[in-house]
Amino acid sequence: MRVLVLGGDGYLGWPMALHLSERGHDVGVLDNLARRGYDKELGTHSLVPIQTLPKRIARWKTLTGKSIECFEGDLIEPDFLREAFAKFRPEAVVHFAEQRAAPYSMIDEAHAVYTQENNVVGNLRVLYAIGETDPSIHLVKLGTMGEYGTPNIDIEEGFLEITHKGRTDRLPYPKQPGSFYHLSKVHDSHNIEFACRIWNLRATDLNQGVVYGQATPETTRHPDLATRFDFDEVFGTVLNRFVVQAVGGLPMTVYGKGGQTRGFINIIDTMACIELTLKNPPKAGEFRVFNQFTEQLSVNDIALRVADALPERQPKVEHLPDPRVEKEEHYYNAVHTKLIDLGLQPHLLDAGVIRGMAALVEKHEDRIDPSVMLPKVNWRLRSGARQAPRVPRKAVRRAARAG
Amino acid sequence: MRVLVLGGDGYLGWPMALHLSERGHDVGVLDNLARRGYDKELGTHSLVPIQTLPKRIARWKTLTGKSIECFEGDLIEPDFLREAFAKFRPEAVVHFAEQRAAPYSMIDEAHAVYTQENNVVGNLRVLYAIGETDPSIHLVKLGTMGEYGTPNIDIEEGFLEITHKGRTDRLPYPKQPGSFYHLSKVHDSHNIEFACRIWNLRATDLNQGVVYGQATPETTRHPDLATRFDFDEVFGTVLNRFVVQAVGGLPMTVYGKGGQTRGFINIIDTMACIELTLKNPPKAGEFRVFNQFTEQLSVNDIALRVADALPERQPKVEHLPDPRVEKEEHYYNAVHTKLIDLGLQPHLLDAGVIRGMAALVEKHEDRIDPSVMLPKVNWRLRSGARQAPRVPRKAVRRAARAG
Repeated sequence: MRVLVLGGDGYLGWPMALHLSERGHDVGVLDNLARRGYDKELGTHSLVPIQTLPKRIARWKTLTGKSIECFEGDLIEPDFLREAFAKFRPEAVVHFAEQRAAPYSMIDEAHAVYTQENNVVGNLRVLYAIGETDPSIHLVKLGTMGEYGTPNIDIEEGFLEITHKGRTDRLPYPKQPGSFYHLSKVHDSHNIEFACRIWNLRATDLNQGVVYGQATPETTRHPDLATRFDFDEVFGTVLNRFVVQAVGGLPMTVYGKGGQTRGFINIIDTMACIELTLKNPPKAGEFRVFNQFTEQLSVNDIALRVADALPERQPKVEHLPDPRVEKEEHYYNAVHTKLIDLGLQPHLLDAGVIRGMAALVEKHEDRIDPSVMLPKVNWRLRSGARQAPRVPRKAVRRAARAG
Repeated sequence: MRVLVLGGDGYLGWPMALHLSERGHDVGVLDNLARRGYDKELGTHSLVPIQTLPKRIARWKTLTGKSIECFEGDLIEPDFLREAFAKFRPEAVVHFAEQRAAPYSMIDEAHAVYTQENNVVGNLRVLYAIGETDPSIHLVKLGTMGEYGTPNIDIEEGFLEITHKGRTDRLPYPKQPGSFYHLSKVHDSHNIEFACRIWNLRATDLNQGVVYGQATPETTRHPDLATRFDFDEVFGTVLNRFVVQAVGGLPMTVYGKGGQTRGFINIIDTMACIELTLKNPPKAGEFRVFNQFTEQLSVNDIALRVADALPERQPKVEHLPDPRVEKEEHYYNAVHTKLIDLGLQPHLLDAGVIRGMAALVEKHEDRIDPSVMLPKVNWRLRSGARQAPRVPRKAVRRAARAG
């Protein structure tokens, strides 16, 4: 299958490209290197050193003989996107190419606007490129479990059968997302559903949980193939931060009461989920939603598991005032059977996984920078705040080019 | 009350400004004149001649002695928006300043992107301007009944109590909008709900039906105070087009079977609804939704009413293939009691209203241009279409300035 991975230089996009290439697919990656730009902007870095995109691709070619076609540019530029489609002629597009950090979107007005414009307009352009190039292309779009928020009823996979005043319909599941980033994914989902409905496109919206882990069988074949490991407050997710804090002798910082519960998934299972999705495409006109996670855990659960897995580190828990505006204790029960039904065999978060992550962190302990780990981005308003004169898109591009 | 009307040069924004000014409120209007630019771009015009914004405001001052403060510029420019807020210090903001035509958003990729970027980013900037200037400002936001689509269950006002697997919650009503324009309003609603939730803003989202009529007690005081009357396929709504066709001796063009049913409202009632909304603000942190229409009618119903009201014209009905992708026959029952509960007294679509509209059209019959009335914008894809090199925002601005 010819698969174009949008955002193929990122944390998940890069291992996904290798995973598919290894299994004999023709793979292209398209990326504007924005993720590297955010590091420069925020003064942080991946704990694990990562190679440049051309060098990553060259190393894969040397090791395996397999080519990955590279399209370096911004998909928000419609001519560039159309040319990449015309040249690569994808049968499926896996779309990771969005700004993916909730805290980044909440820094200030400029970052909120950048996130929604980048994600929503970029995704719209992908829909038009598919529709006007070849409507049979399967769009596999990365969404997030965060689109649902924390309703007081069970979360279903994208749709809900509702009986109301004696009539019944199957309707999109109501969304109550918790950041301008999560909102951008809700907007995307609505736009994609519409495009499938009116243009007969086929799309799978993967509402993914929080991903942990950094190693896949492909990325561990050579240091040049490694993917990112983020530990900063903006892009580092909670498990990564706790393991880094435990290894670094720092307290694990729980935001608020720690009852915040979310879906989680191992990077190994993300690879399998997307491969299963590609192998089992929807029919023309179908918009389907899979909840892509394997277990739900609270922040306190995660702190406990890290403490249990790393007893020699004796990590402590420190509760900080929650910088986010969210429920710190709530009901949460989300269905996630569709990918299991397709054959997913989950790799759950056990002590072995956590110890593996800790070993990785130990190897790169000299690169831990505690100054980027404590929360500075706050969901609350700053009275009178003005937006920075800097436009993130341009700044991010400059930084990505420079580095 | 100090009320800033965003989009105060438009079809509804201008009469709204006059309505509020007449009733003793301090009124400001903010507008980038984009609506005038769309006319130039599409080669059409309001059937009723309209005066420039400065001349409208000057005429109102001459007639009534009342001043309307004018902010000419684009609210998507954050510095301009913040300066307007700082200077005017609004207690309420009525936000009409969005691209409002479904067909305009479906012209091509460039117009879809323009519509979503203009509306979503503009509204985001309004949220930040309110939050960081004065979170107590009441945001009255114009949404659309089209956000709901045509579900097979009754449509409620913004929220739905859902019982699922033995648990109950009140959740946002699921949305299935029918164009990239309608989608932009869905995105706005989600962003506003979030801003109220995390920043304690107060907002009323008015899901308005299709508005008809052109005359209010204020706009009819002098020809310089007239508001627009659109009859083209892009901005003219169905009742306007049917009356113009009937007066012009043309067949009334029904798209498809004509069973498409929507909510409708008289411009007089729109004025009253927004005044009632301003007088009864939500409490801090509350995001509420009113369905702002007074009766629901199918396209065939409207054609019948026009034919009944204008028997001397003997208008015929011509069914065209539907240029939109939509259900041509469907269930539709939408609740609209909240504004009635606040005191709205509806002015329904009777023969007198239609004859009044016909008299207006007769007065300007020489300005009817049948060439802009037949549907050219189609919801379906054109294979291989590329976006125009022209960026609508810039083209619209140039055209607005030139005219």
